[in-house]
Amino acid sequence: MYQFIENGTVTSVSGFKAAGIHCGIKKKKKDLALIYSELPCSAAGTFTINKVKAAPLLISKKAISGKKTVKAVLVNSGNANACTGSEGYNDAKITRKHCAELLGIKPSEVLVSSTGVIGKRLPMDTFLQGINKIVPHLSEEGGLDAAQAIMTTDKKMKSYALKVKLEGGSVKIGAICKGSGMIMPNMATMLAFITTDAKVSQATLQKILKKSVQNSFNKISVDGETSTNDMVVLLANGQSEISIKAGSKNESLFQEALDALTQKMARTIASDGEGATKLITVNVTGAKTDKDANLVGKSVANSALVKTAMYGRDANWGRIMSAAGMSGAKLDPEKMSISFANVPVLLPGYKIVLDEAAALEVLSKDEVEININLASGKKSSTWWTCDFTEEYIKINADYRT
Amino acid sequence: MYQFIENGTVTSVSGFKAAGIHCGIKKKKKDLALIYSELPCSAAGTFTINKVKAAPLLISKKAISGKKTVKAVLVNSGNANACTGSEGYNDAKITRKHCAELLGIKPSEVLVSSTGVIGKRLPMDTFLQGINKIVPHLSEEGGLDAAQAIMTTDKKMKSYALKVKLEGGSVKIGAICKGSGMIMPNMATMLAFITTDAKVSQATLQKILKKSVQNSFNKISVDGETSTNDMVVLLANGQSEISIKAGSKNESLFQEALDALTQKMARTIASDGEGATKLITVNVTGAKTDKDANLVGKSVANSALVKTAMYGRDANWGRIMSAAGMSGAKLDPEKMSISFANVPVLLPGYKIVLDEAAALEVLSKDEVEININLASGKKSSTWWTCDFTEEYIKINADYRT
Repeated sequence: MYQFIENGTVTSVSGFKAAGIHCGIKKKKKDLALIYSELPCSAAGTFTINKVKAAPLLISKKAISGKKTVKAVLVNSGNANACTGSEGYNDAKITRKHCAELLGIKPSEVLVSSTGVIGKRLPMDTFLQGINKIVPHLSEEGGLDAAQAIMTTDKKMKSYALKVKLEGGSVKIGAICKGSGMIMPNMATMLAFITTDAKVSQATLQKILKKSVQNSFNKISVDGETSTNDMVVLLANGQSEISIKAGSKNESLFQEALDALTQKMARTIASDGEGATKLITVNVTGAKTDKDANLVGKSVANSALVKTAMYGRDANWGRIMSAAGMSGAKLDPEKMSISFANVPVLLPGYKIVLDEAAALEVLSKDEVEININLASGKKSSTWWTCDFTEEYIKINADYRT
Repeated sequence: MYQFIENGTVTSVSGFKAAGIHCGIKKKKKDLALIYSELPCSAAGTFTINKVKAAPLLISKKAISGKKTVKAVLVNSGNANACTGSEGYNDAKITRKHCAELLGIKPSEVLVSSTGVIGKRLPMDTFLQGINKIVPHLSEEGGLDAAQAIMTTDKKMKSYALKVKLEGGSVKIGAICKGSGMIMPNMATMLAFITTDAKVSQATLQKILKKSVQNSFNKISVDGETSTNDMVVLLANGQSEISIKAGSKNESLFQEALDALTQKMARTIASDGEGATKLITVNVTGAKTDKDANLVGKSVANSALVKTAMYGRDANWGRIMSAAGMSGAKLDPEKMSISFANVPVLLPGYKIVLDEAAALEVLSKDEVEININLASGKKSSTWWTCDFTEEYIKINADYRT
């Protein structure tokens, strides 16, 4: 039992403060965010599997795997601090230490995260002055400012919260995230910072988060790219005093709510894909194995030809068949059927039942559903992506210069 | 020792005739091609690994694996005859039989191939009348017409031939090919029809072709897509009486010439990628294994972010690092170096030596070279791709409608 909170954000959760400011890493837009909890938090995280990892990511990953408690997350946009070598690593440590000093906590209690251009050193003077400026701004109303400050090419601000009814009382979960380009399956695909006042051990929190990421952020694709900086962090400060023990009823209730939240974020990230005009949901059913279901979903969600066809509102099921066929999944093309939303297109035995007018109608909507039934088993998988437009090219041909 | 022949084509080779006409599958452009040899040919072929295979491909693959001789190849563009079930399979067999009858040969001596829209039945009346019309057009000057007739979204006609000096005399190799969208590594990535008057057994011919495709068509990428119809066919009619035996000096001379021809085609296909403005060559060196070299080359050549950066003439080496890092190859980012043509950008230890003006100059050319040294071993790999532009989106959003 959960309920989304209007204008919800990380500071909708008791005990969390946040702030978002412009400090000068970007020209005009907000570029520095801070999330803070007075109570020490259990911290869980999932991180990019790209072999090229950004400096702040290495530091935060180490902190979380150390299983100590955390009190703050410092995030900048505009500069990824990736491919900056040992100097970049030191830069990140200096910003962390400075932030900790001003907050009166230990450096190890601060997670750091960056997003933006790769291969440029952080402007350290600007950054350190930014930290001086942001700490006094921390407030219980600061979540939306923080959400704005982590955006890069995002068009929509992404901020949510929900209230979850558990045995013994209610807890809240709040989140902010960013992600628009460089989104790719099979990892923590963007930046997301999630807060909760539930009381959860680090190990249980990590298990819950990993499961949730697997069925949300790891199943979206904008362009098949994987960032050097992606991370999802979940902080639990325990302020509600409501416990979530491993294997309990509360765990499954909390998991269900967190899944709703992460899937909401994943769908929003996909629909806010660079240049996107619509959200595409790919539902694969009837697969023999989970692996086959995922291979087909990923291949269709990643297909430039399917994504351009959706942009052109073209019921080009042949491209879907082709993407499924090249996915590496075991499948029998003769058994497959395909529909767009509730409009059947292909039935088993290559029987084409396409009603072009009806297909055009559903393909003209802001949300498009592609349903693929492999008719070979009982496994299924859902993926999210967006259409592929001229605007994606424009954004990415001009990004750095 | 080989030499390209000006305006070379499949009929530059003794004993081969060809024709290309408009028969009505497309509205206006040529859409039917026929290649014919009076002498029976050894035939080798490589075919798509997409699990969804077009009807004509199944028929031709079966014919070639039967190791019988072949005399003709019938190719249509405008309709792929894919995802058309048993009816589509019968259609392809009927066209093959009709063509064989008019040529006075056995149906099993005719290979068939199709390219175009997926999921539509062939217009059989039009097609059969087209066969009636094309057979009398066969001529020793027909190669370029055939090259035109197999084009779909290709902008450039692709037709080549070369003369190879072997022990005992000279032979020729001629080729036509098409390919522009749906180009993806790891298979026979498009349509190519190659003729030679060398005398080669089927087994040796197949071995030579497979090796050549591996280092040419299997290393190009336009959009990461894999067609249902891709095939490369090599016919040897033996008219020169110059033999190529397995393991002989002549085999390696012939292989070298064929490799030059297939790489020429592969580069042209990549540079003619849908909407492309430039050819991009990705040279990976210093890999520990061939697999690592290929993973990095493929990932960089497939990266939408790298390809849009090249379109924007943006020396965005961070995207190259990121694409390499997510390739699955074993690599140490700290050891890597990157250059554009002869302009160094990144040296080991994340030392950035980018001269923006010099980089802009080399990135403004029609051919761009990305060099990636992993400094971890001695293996290398070369891939070809093109930049990614708004035009790709336009072509593919509107293709079918």
